[in-house]
Amino acid sequence: MNSEVRKLLESVKKGETSVDEALLQIKMAPFEDIGFAKVDLHRKIRQGVAEVIYGAGKTPEQIAGIIETMRSNGQERILITRMAQEAADYVGRLYELDYRERSRVGIIGGFPAPDGIGKILVATGGTTDIPVAEEAALVAESLGNEVVRIYDVGVSGVHRLLSHMEHIMSATVIVAVAGMEGALPSVIGGLADCPVIAVPTSVGYGAAFGGVAALLSMLNSCASGMSVVNIDNGFGAGYLASMINHMEVKG
Amino acid sequence: MNSEVRKLLESVKKGETSVDEALLQIKMAPFEDIGFAKVDLHRKIRQGVAEVIYGAGKTPEQIAGIIETMRSNGQERILITRMAQEAADYVGRLYELDYRERSRVGIIGGFPAPDGIGKILVATGGTTDIPVAEEAALVAESLGNEVVRIYDVGVSGVHRLLSHMEHIMSATVIVAVAGMEGALPSVIGGLADCPVIAVPTSVGYGAAFGGVAALLSMLNSCASGMSVVNIDNGFGAGYLASMINHMEVKG
Amino acid sequence: MNSEVRKLLESVKKGETSVDEALLQIKMAPFEDIGFAKVDLHRKIRQGVAEVIYGAGKTPEQIAGIIETMRSNGQERILITRMAQEAADYVGRLYELDYRERSRVGIIGGFPAPDGIGKILVATGGTTDIPVAEEAALVAESLGNEVVRIYDVGVSGVHRLLSHMEHIMSATVIVAVAGMEGALPSVIGGLADCPVIAVPTSVGYGAAFGGVAALLSMLNSCASGMSVVNIDNGFGAGYLASMINHMEVKG
Amino acid sequence: MNSEVRKLLESVKKGETSVDEALLQIKMAPFEDIGFAKVDLHRKIRQGVAEVIYGAGKTPEQIAGIIETMRSNGQERILITRMAQEAADYVGRLYELDYRERSRVGIIGGFPAPDGIGKILVATGGTTDIPVAEEAALVAESLGNEVVRIYDVGVSGVHRLLSHMEHIMSATVIVAVAGMEGALPSVIGGLADCPVIAVPTSVGYGAAFGGVAALLSMLNSCASGMSVVNIDNGFGAGYLASMINHMEVKG
Amino acid sequence: MNSEVRKLLESVKKGETSVDEALLQIKMAPFEDIGFAKVDLHRKIRQGVAEVIYGAGKTPEQIAGIIETMRSNGQERILITRMAQEAADYVGRLYELDYRERSRVGIIGGFPAPDGIGKILVATGGTTDIPVAEEAALVAESLGNEVVRIYDVGVSGVHRLLSHMEHIMSATVIVAVAGMEGALPSVIGGLADCPVIAVPTSVGYGAAFGGVAALLSMLNSCASGMSVVNIDNGFGAGYLASMINHMEVKG
Amino acid sequence: MNSEVRKLLESVKKGETSVDEALLQIKMAPFEDIGFAKVDLHRKIRQGVAEVIYGAGKTPEQIAGIIETMRSNGQERILITRMAQEAADYVGRLYELDYRERSRVGIIGGFPAPDGIGKILVATGGTTDIPVAEEAALVAESLGNEVVRIYDVGVSGVHRLLSHMEHIMSATVIVAVAGMEGALPSVIGGLADCPVIAVPTSVGYGAAFGGVAALLSMLNSCASGMSVVNIDNGFGAGYLASMINHMEVKG
Amino acid sequence: MNSEVRKLLESVKKGETSVDEALLQIKMAPFEDIGFAKVDLHRKIRQGVAEVIYGAGKTPEQIAGIIETMRSNGQERILITRMAQEAADYVGRLYELDYRERSRVGIIGGFPAPDGIGKILVATGGTTDIPVAEEAALVAESLGNEVVRIYDVGVSGVHRLLSHMEHIMSATVIVAVAGMEGALPSVIGGLADCPVIAVPTSVGYGAAFGGVAALLSMLNSCASGMSVVNIDNGFGAGYLASMINHMEVKG
Amino acid sequence: MNSEVRKLLESVKKGETSVDEALLQIKMAPFEDIGFAKVDLHRKIRQGVAEVIYGAGKTPEQIAGIIETMRSNGQERILITRMAQEAADYVGRLYELDYRERSRVGIIGGFPAPDGIGKILVATGGTTDIPVAEEAALVAESLGNEVVRIYDVGVSGVHRLLSHMEHIMSATVIVAVAGMEGALPSVIGGLADCPVIAVPTSVGYGAAFGGVAALLSMLNSCASGMSVVNIDNGFGAGYLASMINHMEVKG
Repeated sequence: MNSEVRKLLESVKKGETSVDEALLQIKMAPFEDIGFAKVDLHRKIRQGVAEVIYGAGKTPEQIAGIIETMRSNGQERILITRMAQEAADYVGRLYELDYRERSRVGIIGGFPAPDGIGKILVATGGTTDIPVAEEAALVAESLGNEVVRIYDVGVSGVHRLLSHMEHIMSATVIVAVAGMEGALPSVIGGLADCPVIAVPTSVGYGAAFGGVAALLSMLNSCASGMSVVNIDNGFGAGYLASMINHMEVKG
Repeated sequence: MNSEVRKLLESVKKGETSVDEALLQIKMAPFEDIGFAKVDLHRKIRQGVAEVIYGAGKTPEQIAGIIETMRSNGQERILITRMAQEAADYVGRLYELDYRERSRVGIIGGFPAPDGIGKILVATGGTTDIPVAEEAALVAESLGNEVVRIYDVGVSGVHRLLSHMEHIMSATVIVAVAGMEGALPSVIGGLADCPVIAVPTSVGYGAAFGGVAALLSMLNSCASGMSVVNIDNGFGAGYLASMINHMEVKG
Repeated sequence: MNSEVRKLLESVKKGETSVDEALLQIKMAPFEDIGFAKVDLHRKIRQGVAEVIYGAGKTPEQIAGIIETMRSNGQERILITRMAQEAADYVGRLYELDYRERSRVGIIGGFPAPDGIGKILVATGGTTDIPVAEEAALVAESLGNEVVRIYDVGVSGVHRLLSHMEHIMSATVIVAVAGMEGALPSVIGGLADCPVIAVPTSVGYGAAFGGVAALLSMLNSCASGMSVVNIDNGFGAGYLASMINHMEVKG
Repeated sequence: MNSEVRKLLESVKKGETSVDEALLQIKMAPFEDIGFAKVDLHRKIRQGVAEVIYGAGKTPEQIAGIIETMRSNGQERILITRMAQEAADYVGRLYELDYRERSRVGIIGGFPAPDGIGKILVATGGTTDIPVAEEAALVAESLGNEVVRIYDVGVSGVHRLLSHMEHIMSATVIVAVAGMEGALPSVIGGLADCPVIAVPTSVGYGAAFGGVAALLSMLNSCASGMSVVNIDNGFGAGYLASMINHMEVKG
Repeated sequence: MNSEVRKLLESVKKGETSVDEALLQIKMAPFEDIGFAKVDLHRKIRQGVAEVIYGAGKTPEQIAGIIETMRSNGQERILITRMAQEAADYVGRLYELDYRERSRVGIIGGFPAPDGIGKILVATGGTTDIPVAEEAALVAESLGNEVVRIYDVGVSGVHRLLSHMEHIMSATVIVAVAGMEGALPSVIGGLADCPVIAVPTSVGYGAAFGGVAALLSMLNSCASGMSVVNIDNGFGAGYLASMINHMEVKG
Repeated sequence: MNSEVRKLLESVKKGETSVDEALLQIKMAPFEDIGFAKVDLHRKIRQGVAEVIYGAGKTPEQIAGIIETMRSNGQERILITRMAQEAADYVGRLYELDYRERSRVGIIGGFPAPDGIGKILVATGGTTDIPVAEEAALVAESLGNEVVRIYDVGVSGVHRLLSHMEHIMSATVIVAVAGMEGALPSVIGGLADCPVIAVPTSVGYGAAFGGVAALLSMLNSCASGMSVVNIDNGFGAGYLASMINHMEVKG
Repeated sequence: MNSEVRKLLESVKKGETSVDEALLQIKMAPFEDIGFAKVDLHRKIRQGVAEVIYGAGKTPEQIAGIIETMRSNGQERILITRMAQEAADYVGRLYELDYRERSRVGIIGGFPAPDGIGKILVATGGTTDIPVAEEAALVAESLGNEVVRIYDVGVSGVHRLLSHMEHIMSATVIVAVAGMEGALPSVIGGLADCPVIAVPTSVGYGAAFGGVAALLSMLNSCASGMSVVNIDNGFGAGYLASMINHMEVKG
Repeated sequence: MNSEVRKLLESVKKGETSVDEALLQIKMAPFEDIGFAKVDLHRKIRQGVAEVIYGAGKTPEQIAGIIETMRSNGQERILITRMAQEAADYVGRLYELDYRERSRVGIIGGFPAPDGIGKILVATGGTTDIPVAEEAALVAESLGNEVVRIYDVGVSGVHRLLSHMEHIMSATVIVAVAGMEGALPSVIGGLADCPVIAVPTSVGYGAAFGGVAALLSMLNSCASGMSVVNIDNGFGAGYLASMINHMEVKG
């Protein structure tokens, strides 16, 4: 807005543009040129961290095209989530891609140095929850966070979880990933003194209903300081965790 | 059957009853007189223990009537579940009734001495789950079991549960009662080496859906040796626990 | 643990306690005395802030009893959520209670000075969502946060929301409360650059299904940095918002 | 009816047919010959516009057969929805077919000139909603409407939507297509002063439940002047929008 | 905007305000002063018609207060939906209120003369659906529409419906209200050649699930030109019907 | 139709009415006068049997009014279902009413002699299902059927059911009523060689979901010759059973 | 039972078998030898009609094996439902099989002459419902019924249905098959004076939920004399229709 | 713990380790070294029985790896559930594997001699439930139980079930497996006097909803002594049955 509206105002000042005409132009100006200037701050992610591409439903060519655009705009680090093997093969022929098959995440340009206020802990109930957890962990790492992983520490063997007490107590924010009964975040939430982001996964069968059982379990947790994201939404958890881990004093 | 059919056979033997007539009588005999003789064993609960009346949907007069019949049949101990205060008042005027308001359970004739193979542990996640737990505990006690109660040991403060490790390890069967996220049985199931009966309760609000969240959580538990009864079904859990706690070598 | 186990070790050192006996005592020590020492940190809420009592399902007498215990333990500020008018009347006769009828929240001892890193914004879609929002806001205030309220800014009149752009952009964390279509958090999440905690409410009728429509809408939001708590869970949102607004660099 | 029943009545008048026989024939007359004459008006779509074939579940041969019949009846413009690539290939070898792969819509005979009272705006929340939106847009165009498309203007970036304010304000009827949280129609409905037809899509994962989350969100919208069609029902929305855009004074 | 921004621009022109300062003021201007000017058009309902108050969840005093404000702003006709008897009694003591008990609708100032392009038909499946239908009908009448009512013409006696063929064929828009199996709109939609707004009601028991059966039935209708509003949402249907019945050619 | 249309045709024959005028009158004739003549046969229930009034949602005065109309039309036997005590009191003061409190059914004029082709068996799983079963039984009796009742023969004590084998094998049609697990119709359906109408009841708690568990159980039965009506729909089952029990050879 | 138990009794009479031994043998006798003799009557389907094999989940070899067994037992007519093309090919090489691809039904030995008391009408809402309808029709025909088919007479074009009024009025029992909104059985049920068996189909998309919308619609029908079978259960409907169409006076 | 902590304490006693250092080490000691010693008892399955591997979601190589580890630890008997044919082929080339295709269970090292207190009965409603039942049976056998199988004894032919009365009466614990209406466990539960573990299966179509109908039916059973595991969870039922069949007196 600065440039365009300023020019207009200066033109009004000089008498080159009539008040009526200026009024019309301001009214017609795209919203983002006026009040939404700040919105772009929102999108301006911290220097050096990765941009994230949601790969699901995009063809290999489309993903490659977005990458090309980003890189031509100076973005060096790019992380692609839900990237099919096929897309990874295609993109891998064009760029130096670090592809993690299990979590279907691809990374270009490596990870930035962590600059958060602490560490993010990512925990899973079982081994089958790891792909979702890795999506969260890699997203967080690509956004400049140190991530500690404790996997397969489900509540039906709670001593496994308790042996990681140090990590739980020292985390700034915890991402707890679980399918089936989805009880891990509740137990962690009762132990930790930091925000816990619960991620239900679609792991399970029968009455697991594709993650609904875990989702309901998490929404009903009596542990304080906990909130929930969508089923299998590792990206959302990693992004939010990074946001919390980069909290700063405002105004 | 013994008496009636025996008499018939003897009558045939003596020639007092023709074969045709005997054939007809056997065919017409109530099923329970023939193959179902054993069924009655099923109903013949061990000597001295209580009969249980399900009080819901019965008027005070109906409950009193059933008690009268039972007692005239020599049954001294009677336990009434889901007994409204109004029914307790009515019955209490007729019999010496020990009424537990919170669990809506009434007992006539006191409790028998425990004769199970071990102790039944009844645990709850929160204090609001206690009425259901007490229904289970009192049913079990009325059927001749020693019951240990550990209440309000929910998973969002797992150290409270762990401080009862001795009870968990020494129980013969555990009834784990929880609403909301319903994770307690999973955690207990991972610690204990005995059958765990999970009881979801309708405690909670919002996405608890009247106990459905807890029910699903329990059905999806990855802890071995665990099974589930209906929401708020303290009676069913107590009855089954007693059955397991009275297992004996069969033939 | 420090004191008790230290004494034990010193006693071993001095030969007053045998190794075997010490071994037994350590093994039997309540869990919280060993690894769970930090757990208490979790419960040690920052100096001066309120303790919160969940009033639902508690009798006036029970609430008064808990307050008495807390105050005798030196807790001056106490906040009671989901407090019925009847309980407020009872407690109000014993203590100087500031009772907010609409949100069913009662406060004893007033609010502490805010000491968070910024402001918490609490927004609602409609006027009927305000009770839940106030629960969140009052919980946050009682935990030492400055709270800005913008109510009735639902998405079916998005200009109302946009006129509060300054508040949205300057918040440290936002609690967005909405029933019916539950779209408010998504719109706010797209505008803000801070964590957004979405609270579905049971406001609505028909296919609102007691908050389920709003809950699903929020779980499926494509806005980044957003997470969800249970339907009507103002307390949970306020508590988590306070936790995020008090983030500090850890070790 | 005119001809047949008139002939019968004249035959009665002349005495050629008895009253009894006429009574019988009238009773037996197909319903459509009597009161349902008007029903056909309903099917008589305005001159020059396309007939629409619902292609799902029909073989290429069946579709080709229907096209043949329609064309032999003088219908020049035909639009096929939910047309598989395979069917398009088959039909394309027989007729000059304009096939839109993404929306699976095929057109024979091109589009008629718009003759509605205004423009129909078709908007989508994301890019993955476009196939459904295109089905709506192409159906509307084939029925003689001018369609303005604004795609990927979802509510998690509301400024994108607001930059199209002119289109929203000048539309006669709006078709708002969205999956996931389904909030787009609510926001548009709050801005526009014309009927808004909301189309939930099955886009999304986890708790999106194949479009149910979006559907519920739309049904619960507090925006006035809005109604909803089935999940992914682009055809229904386009057809209804055209009907509204061709409203005329009756009687 | 006209006045304020114009003044600002004139002030810039005269050199009384610097370009920088003007830039800041424009940036800070409330959104409604810029692009949202038109939004108010949206709220400017046609001269003479009623404003509608949603009475649910409002106290008699609150409703009376809103009425007072509206009337002091020159609004003479006011319609209150979901108005409890108690509120009607209260308001009736202050204003000349025409209260319809069955539909819980109250009207102040009577109805305007109809000025739509045709008639709105409101039909119900059963007699128990009438309150919802009346809400729709009265809302439409209060917004300046002629309404024809055909009640209790459910599909399990389709000849009752067919005897109203003239009304169905001559309507500009139809509001079809039904609970239980909710089939009425489908049958009407197959007969009529105008938009049909389907309103499911919560009438029924058992597997009616409070209107869900009817809602699903309507969403899945194969009749063209039909759309659905929320369960029991008579207001929404009446408002939309009026909007369609007042369609005009737009610039 | 006979009279009216015949008169019209005779008038045409005589030349008193023109063909055009007759054409118009026939077109305008109510549908029931033409093709729907037979529909009335449908409503003409066999001589002497009762008319049934669905009492739910009707005031005592409304019910009395309908009864009055029916009786003035010569209907002597009237059965009212879902009749509240209050309505029974009111109606009982005006007519000789036989009111069954448990099933909320009232009868005026007593029952007709049975004239069906056999007996209808009505069975229930438990005692709490009896009100629904009695509604079915009384409806069937009021429509001229002999009804055999076997109550409380639920599948968790299958020998109770088997002791009624004679009744099961000799019934013409069976109405099987059950709540909770709803298994009774399946077991009966496997034993009987006649149509079985399954009626789920809303009896139960927790995961019974108001009859949904029983409904699903019945819909999934592998017993042949079985069909299902709505939850608690005793009337529907009794009516259908009577219809089947009065099957006759058709032309 | 006759033979075996008679022999035993005679042996007792003769003194060849002791009473004790006879008692034991009777107790051990298979149930079907005693009370269940009649059960076999149930399975004795009328002379000449087909046996039905449910083909789903059976291999071609398994189906062929069952056919072989049946034929070696003298069964000449065999109907196989849900028979995959692959199974039809395999069986067709061994037997003279009449395979109907669309309904996946295969017939060996042709159809018996109809011997029911009237005609069964099978109707569908759309063309996609025909496979399920054909399963019902062919099952009924194979069991000795005359079947009239009226397909694609859905309620969104009710005049199509009404033109078949003669068939509706003259049927003994009607099978009404519909997916999507499932309204066909309700409309037919309101016209016909015979039992209507409603069959929901899984036809549809979005909020059709695989037949649930149609199922609920049918369960909530206000038409009398109607009942419902499982989604897509053409076999069940055809079997029950045949049973009703063969009703005879009993005892 | 014994060794490590004892050494530490002795070191403190000797003055070789300071109290502070010892304090730190104890605090850091893995949880399992202190209170969780007993937990391992839990995992110590009885001598000679099999370890069970859950094969779902594991590659053939992963399964082989786990087997290798187990065998190198001296475990001779290993049972793999949910083992794909492909995995069986792979593992079968490395070890002597007994693979049961229908139940997808593989066994290495054969079955141990039964040492339970009685027999486990495994029953199914239909033949399609057998794979789940076999999983339960083979798990139980691999854990040292004698298993009796009675398959295809569903409730729609209850005499088949009753002919196995001897087995039902003599079992120590019963696993009842059923899909569709899921009524088998209820009927068995009413006959037996031992614990019944109900296993719903995903067998069925339409309103079976993948096992939900059976699950709900089982949860609502009125038979005492019954509990439920997840849909298709044969392993869980077999494991729990074995646990109950090995109950011993404790303490």
